[in-house]
Amino acid sequence: MDEVKIIEIKKSIFADNDLDAEHLRGELKSRGVYLLNLMSAPGSGKTTTLIQTINRLKDQLHIAVMEADIDSDVDAVKIKEATGIPSIQLHTGGMCHLDAEMTRQGLDNVQIDGTDLVILENVGNLVCPAEFDTGAVRNAMILSVPEGHDKPLKYPLMFSVCDVVVINKIDVMPYFDFDLEKCKEYIHMRNPKATVIPVCAKTGEGIDKFADWLLTEVRNWQK
Amino acid sequence: MDEVKIIEIKKSIFADNDLDAEHLRGELKSRGVYLLNLMSAPGSGKTTTLIQTINRLKDQLHIAVMEADIDSDVDAVKIKEATGIPSIQLHTGGMCHLDAEMTRQGLDNVQIDGTDLVILENVGNLVCPAEFDTGAVRNAMILSVPEGHDKPLKYPLMFSVCDVVVINKIDVMPYFDFDLEKCKEYIHMRNPKATVIPVCAKTGEGIDKFADWLLTEVRNWQK
Repeated sequence: MDEVKIIEIKKSIFADNDLDAEHLRGELKSRGVYLLNLMSAPGSGKTTTLIQTINRLKDQLHIAVMEADIDSDVDAVKIKEATGIPSIQLHTGGMCHLDAEMTRQGLDNVQIDGTDLVILENVGNLVCPAEFDTGAVRNAMILSVPEGHDKPLKYPLMFSVCDVVVINKIDVMPYFDFDLEKCKEYIHMRNPKATVIPVCAKTGEGIDKFADWLLTEVRNWQK
Repeated sequence: MDEVKIIEIKKSIFADNDLDAEHLRGELKSRGVYLLNLMSAPGSGKTTTLIQTINRLKDQLHIAVMEADIDSDVDAVKIKEATGIPSIQLHTGGMCHLDAEMTRQGLDNVQIDGTDLVILENVGNLVCPAEFDTGAVRNAMILSVPEGHDKPLKYPLMFSVCDVVVINKIDVMPYFDFDLEKCKEYIHMRNPKATVIPVCAKTGEGIDKFADWLLTEVRNWQK
């Protein structure tokens, strides 16, 4: 297995995370770097979706990935092996989310000059990560079919802060009571402007649409 | 739809949660009430598993349920409609977990004298709830097949604090890369004494085993 750099994240000392996040976004803008914060529940397929998306974009964009996890480094290794792009692991040491300062600790270990897109795979959790602005340009989340279409009712903040919701594992829709139209309706109750993209990361179905959304976002940010 | 009582949970004021949890457990012991803390990621099927389990036990035990959720009351309503047992909703108001004092706020709204078993359905989250002793006699968790067998590697604390791990949605095992033996091995790396019970809450397969485990637990607690 490939070895990846592991960063032990320390608790933040800044009191005003919102301000800190704005500063970070400003720095990224001036350096032409787009940061995407990707969130989801455990097991929704974040890493597989990322691999598929990166493989579609890596000839057009310089990409780096920061994988946040409480303890393991399986995801960073997987990303590096499957895409060949720079990937580092952030260990939160039990912490359930990342804020802007913690994200900056990760970015300090990424060669960001010359990088167009940094993707932060946040801790698998639908509650806490939604409360903290990481300094990312956009928030994205993945909801997988087996989790059920009622999740926007139960995790309102997560769905209100996300600009795009990728609905993964649509291949198993026949085996679950998942109503895609109802799900879209619930998502739009939380955030009327959210873009909803159904995909199957395993087969690649729908990933082009997410990759296109992301490419357009990055290009607009760099204008 | 049935109406259920909704309790808005306040932040705890106690500094020493571990001590507070021991006190709560002591009180419950003296009153012959068994409290089970049930945890999982969002969408793992906690509510469906509970309904199946309660319907197998409700002739033998007096049961009450406390459903913790950030905002909605869909689960408490579902439980009440499907089982007829007392069910209340705890709103955490954005908080990602319950501690012992917050659990007590819920218990104050349950008729616990004469009740054998109170089940606390904790917030859907594999990170934060694991860090706080709720005062429950045992911790249980549900891991569903679509989440993947590697979750014990990524959420070590959750799996170390759980006495029983129910593996749900085994009916869809053919459609996912889920290795049950590997999963058991990873769970036992975290907690060698954990009981692992594969079930399909939708069809009821395996639920008898979980119900038996719980009945034995309650009877032993009441001795």
